[in-house]
Amino acid sequence: VKDSEVQLDAVERGEYRHYMQKEIFEQPRAIAETLEGRFNGLKLIEEAFGNDAPAVFDRVKAVQILACGTSYHAGLVARYWMESLAGIPCNVEVASEYRYRDPVLLPDTLVVTISQSGETADTLAALEEAKRRGALHSLAICNVQESSLVRESDLVLLTRAGPEIGVASTKAFTTQLVALMMLTLALGRRHRLDRVTEKRIASQLFALPARVEDVLELDDRIRALSERFADKQHALFLGRGSHYPIAMEGALKLKEISYIHAEAYPAGELKHGPLALVDADMPVIAVAPNNSLLEKLKSNLQEVKARGGELYVFADETLDVQPDDHTHVLTVTPTENELSPVIFTVPLQLLAYHVAVIRGTDVDKPRNLAKSVTVE
Amino acid sequence: VKDSEVQLDAVERGEYRHYMQKEIFEQPRAIAETLEGRFNGLKLIEEAFGNDAPAVFDRVKAVQILACGTSYHAGLVARYWMESLAGIPCNVEVASEYRYRDPVLLPDTLVVTISQSGETADTLAALEEAKRRGALHSLAICNVQESSLVRESDLVLLTRAGPEIGVASTKAFTTQLVALMMLTLALGRRHRLDRVTEKRIASQLFALPARVEDVLELDDRIRALSERFADKQHALFLGRGSHYPIAMEGALKLKEISYIHAEAYPAGELKHGPLALVDADMPVIAVAPNNSLLEKLKSNLQEVKARGGELYVFADETLDVQPDDHTHVLTVTPTENELSPVIFTVPLQLLAYHVAVIRGTDVDKPRNLAKSVTVE
Repeated sequence: VKDSEVQLDAVERGEYRHYMQKEIFEQPRAIAETLEGRFNGLKLIEEAFGNDAPAVFDRVKAVQILACGTSYHAGLVARYWMESLAGIPCNVEVASEYRYRDPVLLPDTLVVTISQSGETADTLAALEEAKRRGALHSLAICNVQESSLVRESDLVLLTRAGPEIGVASTKAFTTQLVALMMLTLALGRRHRLDRVTEKRIASQLFALPARVEDVLELDDRIRALSERFADKQHALFLGRGSHYPIAMEGALKLKEISYIHAEAYPAGELKHGPLALVDADMPVIAVAPNNSLLEKLKSNLQEVKARGGELYVFADETLDVQPDDHTHVLTVTPTENELSPVIFTVPLQLLAYHVAVIRGTDVDKPRNLAKSVTVE
Repeated sequence: VKDSEVQLDAVERGEYRHYMQKEIFEQPRAIAETLEGRFNGLKLIEEAFGNDAPAVFDRVKAVQILACGTSYHAGLVARYWMESLAGIPCNVEVASEYRYRDPVLLPDTLVVTISQSGETADTLAALEEAKRRGALHSLAICNVQESSLVRESDLVLLTRAGPEIGVASTKAFTTQLVALMMLTLALGRRHRLDRVTEKRIASQLFALPARVEDVLELDDRIRALSERFADKQHALFLGRGSHYPIAMEGALKLKEISYIHAEAYPAGELKHGPLALVDADMPVIAVAPNNSLLEKLKSNLQEVKARGGELYVFADETLDVQPDDHTHVLTVTPTENELSPVIFTVPLQLLAYHVAVIRGTDVDKPRNLAKSVTVE
């Protein structure tokens, strides 16, 4: 099966009202396909990245990720994985910023580009700029085999999400995360990732499609919740650590298709500015907080309750939180594991989707946005 | 003169309506004081950072900046300077994020913390965490000599902004930038900064107070402009390179004191999402664009004009832009130099100030925010 051959049946919406909705529900399969044939039992096959991959990975001492939009958010999650699991220094930068400044490239840096289409103009230009600066190793994470980005990169891991029609990226993002975790395993072997952890994460990867199915079961509850957001003009998404980029991605989805001005902040920065904005018109959404963070958030928001501030918590079952008039809780399958950012992505996609449907926007083709940004 | 001794006459508002306004207008003097006695002609005196500074700087191979809020934005500007001028790898991270993840610390990293008060709880905790991870060298940029941060750091450069009363930081920020440029000079000497460039930048630093005076002359024009913003609920600030953090700082000021939901984006990311939001209620503010970037912005915004989208350009005189019904231009003193981010900060401070005054908020004590965030 060629990855980019648009198969007519695959692009039919079928029972779904919108392509985006269909693509959200396709994620379990897309993730399974992205893993298919790339492990030997619970052992990653490094040649999945290309025949030269093991030799290149042996030399790599640092990672520089370059991407735009949703793919940039995938890169930000990967940074946490690369540093905490693999123990390898990792930087992530918006491609359009990297290409126009004068960055320092550490020796033996692997330049990782991420793009669904493989034709994102700024990402291609940033890769070219990194090569001009002497980058010796490049790796693309991409959904389209015959793309410019794949041609220009030494190593490639294709996400096998299948054609993505909705302008707001969903299954491309979660399969990018899966690909980036595979890269973390490959590099981590050469740094501080032990065999036991690799096996545990590999097991989690193979369990992921079923876990995403579980989260998709929340669809009705999220649709009900989305009615509370439909008349809002603002939203504040808060996350911490590897869930901060997920908060960013949740905010971006809501922006793109519902035209609500949603913004993400790392939770600790709330009191350095955005707290002044919170009122009944600006709900606060906390993504995967732990108990101590939630306590801080609740105390930060205490003063805001008089102005009608509301807190929505997307949390796993380990969280000890009682809903009240101002605190709404949606419990996601317990996810005490490294892949938790993938799990928490899904309810935020569904939230943006249902809010947009209620608001009557053109979900699959939001105003002013193109699917692939092939101009600078 | 002890830096943190609150001098009664210095905290009087005098002719000014608010402390924030007074502090904006004090910036030329604050910058001059921060430079005072720290250069020998056009040569930086490295001992200004402490007696051990030259020996520490000799060993430093990378920089990790840790800060919160406005100080974090100063760090982001410094990253561009450190990499493009000094040629030294530099990372910047929100202190509350750094302390809770598992970051990789490069060998011989100088950990630079930035805080006006020197009592920001997350910044102190992040410094402690970096030391626990083996960081050998620490440097604080701080406005208060007797602070915890100064006590906990090996090297220190005090900004001499004087007491800052307004919760929204202004003169502390611009003097932090001056201090960070001095640090860039010191480290750059040992990497790729040549003597000629150092002299040129030193001259620019000494010219800076007069340049800031020039920009303050725009006060009346900015007050007039601010009337167009006073009824808005949203704003989008766009910048690129070292001016992207200035766009972030401009958005934060507007958020903090006028309660307008302002958000900053790197200009190249506009078409990856936020463009869908732009309409008559969400003006777009471009900070210091060059001609080619402005062309792209104008073409991006072309489609939005039908929805009433308006573009405000804060530009230097080198920019070739004709105002029209949807494009408003405010020309700032020509600033074809490395300190341009400092110059462009000032009109954005004035804009936030005047908008807040028109909206009748409590400018010096915005709701829910504290001057120093001494809790986590």
